[in-house]
This record gives sequence, structure tokens and C-alpha cells, in this order.
Amino acid sequence: MFDEKKLVSKILGRNKNITDVFFAACGGSLNDLFPVHYFIESESKKLHSMCKPARELVLIDSPRWNDKSITFVLSHSGNTPEAIEAAKIAKNNGSFVIAITNDKNSKLNDSSLYDDLIVYNWGKSVSHKDVPMGIEFRIVNEFLHQTEDDYTKYEDMLSGLNQIDSIIENAKNIQKDSAAKFAQKYRKQPFLYILGSGASTSQAYGFAICSLMEMQWMDCAYINSAEFFHGPFEVLQDDKVFVQCINAGKTRVLDERSRDFIEKYHGQLEVIDANKFGMDKIKDSVVDYFNPFVFYEMGVLYRDELSEKRGHQTDFRQYMGKVDYSYESDIK
Amino acid sequence: MFDEKKLVSKILGRNKNITDVFFAACGGSLNDLFPVHYFIESESKKLHSMCKPARELVLIDSPRWNDKSITFVLSHSGNTPEAIEAAKIAKNNGSFVIAITNDKNSKLNDSSLYDDLIVYNWGKSVSHKDVPMGIEFRIVNEFLHQTEDDYTKYEDMLSGLNQIDSIIENAKNIQKDSAAKFAQKYRKQPFLYILGSGASTSQAYGFAICSLMEMQWMDCAYINSAEFFHGPFEVLQDDKVFVQCINAGKTRVLDERSRDFIEKYHGQLEVIDANKFGMDKIKDSVVDYFNPFVFYEMGVLYRDELSEKRGHQTDFRQYMGKVDYSYESDIK
Repeated sequence: MFDEKKLVSKILGRNKNITDVFFAACGGSLNDLFPVHYFIESESKKLHSMCKPARELVLIDSPRWNDKSITFVLSHSGNTPEAIEAAKIAKNNGSFVIAITNDKNSKLNDSSLYDDLIVYNWGKSVSHKDVPMGIEFRIVNEFLHQTEDDYTKYEDMLSGLNQIDSIIENAKNIQKDSAAKFAQKYRKQPFLYILGSGASTSQAYGFAICSLMEMQWMDCAYINSAEFFHGPFEVLQDDKVFVQCINAGKTRVLDERSRDFIEKYHGQLEVIDANKFGMDKIKDSVVDYFNPFVFYEMGVLYRDELSEKRGHQTDFRQYMGKVDYSYESDIK
Repeated sequence: MFDEKKLVSKILGRNKNITDVFFAACGGSLNDLFPVHYFIESESKKLHSMCKPARELVLIDSPRWNDKSITFVLSHSGNTPEAIEAAKIAKNNGSFVIAITNDKNSKLNDSSLYDDLIVYNWGKSVSHKDVPMGIEFRIVNEFLHQTEDDYTKYEDMLSGLNQIDSIIENAKNIQKDSAAKFAQKYRKQPFLYILGSGASTSQAYGFAICSLMEMQWMDCAYINSAEFFHGPFEVLQDDKVFVQCINAGKTRVLDERSRDFIEKYHGQLEVIDANKFGMDKIKDSVVDYFNPFVFYEMGVLYRDELSEKRGHQTDFRQYMGKVDYSYESDIK
């Protein structure tokens, strides 16, 4: 069983003066890292954090990526070349590398690539505490608790992590009929906009690029709700379709504002509102960080309903894993 | 005349121990800030940087946003409520606020909102050194030069800033015919993808949300080239249209990889390649940071050509500045 206390002791045992955290992954895995990066930016007084597509992070190779840093490398398959490359560079730079994968027999399980390896299970019966986003939050929450005296949200985070599974079950039950109706109505829609903000900006992004583009071959775009009024809203007319994710917590005002405008000007609007799912069980102080768990699952729900109505299986690919799109590593 | 040396002295005169830089703006102005944020992440050993939509930054209100920070607030009109709000919070937090606007009579010109105000001119005859992106690069380049002993790119950056105007003139001349043909061919295209990476990720984004969505009411999505292979590429078939921005410098490999794949699998592809415009006049050490200048102007060029062929004037709006979309500030 993974133990975040032991891991944090191991990190601090090697270097007590950690200043930076780097998050390296691609696509769906990058979405799982972003909320924890957002958490650090929002809560830590000491840590700097960078979260980028793995290969971009490697090409930048920030001067801060050194032995005073921790690097999270996440690859579900454990074989993503960009993630392997990022782990290699992180190790070369002296960073403490935490590699996270679903497959213990993958390329990422090479002891030269990490300081700690976490292999997680995946499936409907696995708690959200024990999948990558939950694991990362547990590690960083523990780290802040042990290293920053005035960090006060430790217990609230732990309590939230114990609530999130039941909230997600709620969310699926409550939203299922809407998702099915949406899928029926928009199964032939040529193009959709997905809106979200704050910690779940990455889940609006993942809804678009993973659930719809990758798994349904549907064209769509993701927009940060905060940016909607600064350009994107000019496309709004009554033939346009928007999925609006509405967070619980501080950034809710951003999502409500774009929702209200789209309604007023007759956009076709699907609202997914985290506040309807029992998020009040989570403390206000930390509720922001639990929105991404919910919206990841909402992307899955809508994708699955669309799959049914469109006759397009979610695991059907034309390119991924089927054709060659390898690249020559920049790392010699 | 704006003098970055004086400004940096003023900042350091107030606090020698600057640790953080915050970038606050919306839409097109946010695009102008991102490359400088990227520059700090890539080059600084001491500074941490955060770049977010202004209101999101305000809602997060990071514990690092304090008297050891500098905040850039950019609003072209000087009246964007989210930018004003960010300046207010930054000042409350004790940050050194640099407010940048095109209009000296705007709301942003209120001495309670900034420590330094920069009013820039705008128009075809103004050098790119003297518009927001250039001004910000000059300030941060000067800051790193004065505060980080091993920062070696000072002269290369200054030299690049002296080259960029002529490179952009080149780029416009070289790309004009392609842009006109593109506009003729795709004037009725329902939907486009814009791809870019690295420092000009924000210019791919701006190409989509400002040039096309706002100014042409065209539906489109922006994708980081590094992310293309991790979901988005599954939509690729011969009816899809992609505009691929190709950087000069380190991140070029990311753009070339998606370009090659789109070509191979018969996507309709418009390539804009910074290497064709004389970017070799700029030192390799800093060329990455000059891509955004070029791609901003390419967005403008394609927008203007589309405007001609679509009969849609670039300053025609249905909502912006025409209907009420104000919000009640969260700041009391």
C-alpha cells in the first residue's frame, strides 16, 4: 500500500530544501497533474511549480530543474516516450523523480528513471484516492504539512479525499439522464465548445481532447470561462453548442458568468454544475481542488453516452497505437 | 521615452529580494504576457512566475503574491474590469505593479493602482520593441541582467529586439500570397485547428480566440503541437483544416512532428514557418522568444485576408463593447 508519509520522509531525507516541483506528462495524464500544480500555486508559500507537456518541459530544461526539485512523471501505459525522456532528464538534473504508472512491466519501471515508483490500479472499484490525481494530492498535501508551518488545510484535504468517491457516484447518477439526452440530441453535431475554469481548466481541456477528440473523433474546442468574454464569445449564436462545467468554490463566479451570458444570447447550453452533486460535504477551504475529480468523470459519462448514440466505440483509434508516429529523442 | 534601466532600479530600490513575477491580463493582452512568463520559466534561476487570466489570478490570490513580487497588468484599453481588479489586489498585496496601457486617460491610470505606468503607442509605424511584448521583454531582460550573475543572454536579447521589426516585415511579404489563397479557399470553412508550441503557444491561442473567433466569428480550436499526438490527432482526416505555426529554435521539433503527421495522413494543412522569415539573424540562444512576435503578426495577416474574402470587417462585434456583460467585482 502506497504511503505518502514514507515518501515525503524519503524526499526530505535526501534534500530538506526543496524549492520546485515539476509536472511532466502528456494528454490525459497531463490533465491529471495540472490540478495538483494549481494547488501548489494556490497554497504553497515556498514551492514553485511548473506543469507542461513532457517534451516541452524537456526542451525548456529550466535552470530551476535541479537537486532542489521534485518531479512527477505520469504515464498510464508507462511507455509514453516523452514521459520516459522527461524522467531521464529529471534524473540527470538531480531532481527527485516520482514515476507513476498503471503498468509495473512498462519501460518506466527502470530504476535509473526514478527515485520512487508508484504503480496504481485502475478500474471502477478503485477509490479516487488511489488513482494518480488522488495520489499526487496526498503527496503534496503531506509535503506542505511537513514543511510549511502555516499550512492549515491538511485535515480538510484528507477529509475531502474521503468524501470524493461518494460525491462522484452522486454526480454520475444525477447527471446520467442529461448526458443521455445530450448525446441523443447532439450525436451529429459537427463541433462543440467545452468551458471550465480554475483547477478544472484541465478537465475541460481533457473533456475536449481525450473524451471527444480522441475517443469520439468529434471536433471541439476548450475555453477557460475567464477568457470567454475576451474574444471567444463573439462566435455565440443560437446554432452553437456549449458544455459549461461549473465549479464549486472560488472560481464558480467565472463559470456562472459565461453560463448566464450563453443562456441570455440563446446558445445551446449543457450545464454540469458541481454544486448539485453534494460538494458541500467538502470544506470550503479546499473544495476548489475537488472539482477536477468530478469533471474528469463527467467527461467520461458524456463520452460513454455519445459512444452509445453514435455507434463509435470509445477504444476505437485510427492512429494511436496503430501507426508509427515515433520521433528521434533529443536526448543522447 | 520609456527606460527599463530606471524602472528596474526603482523596483530594486524598493525591494532587493524579488522572488516572484505575476502576469495579469485577459484575451489578447494575456497572449502578450505569456511569452515573457515563458522566458522567465526558461531562463531565470531565481524568479518564479505565474501567468493567468486576470480574474482567475485574483480569485487564487497566491500566498506568494506579496511585497517580494512584481506584477505586470496589461490592458490595451486600460478599462478592462478584470485587469483593474488585478492591479488593485496586487497593490493590496504589496506587489510592485507595472501597469501597461495604450490609453493614458483610461481607468488604469489611477495612481492608487500602480507603482509604474507605461503608456505605449499602437500602430503600423511603432517598433515591436515599444509595444507591450517588447516592453516586457526589455524589463525582464534588464532585471535578470542586474540580478542574476550567470544570466548570459542580455546582449543577445537586445540584439534580437533590434532585428525583429525587419523580420516581421519579411514575414508579412513572404506569407501574404499564401494567406490570400488560404482565405479564398477556406472562407466558408466551418471550423479550423491552429497548432503551435513553446513560447508561441499563446499566439496559436490568440490566432484562434482573437483573430478568428472574435474578429471573424469563425469557430476554431488551438492545440499545443506537443499535445497533438496525445488525443487530438484522432480527428485528423482529409476534410480537416490545420494551420501549423512552426517555431524557430528548440521547440521547432514539436511543430515539425505534427506538421509531418498531418501531411502524411492527408489533413488540409497551412504551414507558417518562422525559419523562412530570416530568424537566423537572431542568436540561437534567444531565438525561441522571438517566435511570438512573428506569429502574432501572422494571425493578423490571415485575419485581414479572411476579412477581405468573407466580407466581415475585423472591427465588427456583436457583443464586445455593445451589450452589458459586466460583473459585480469580488473585491470590496
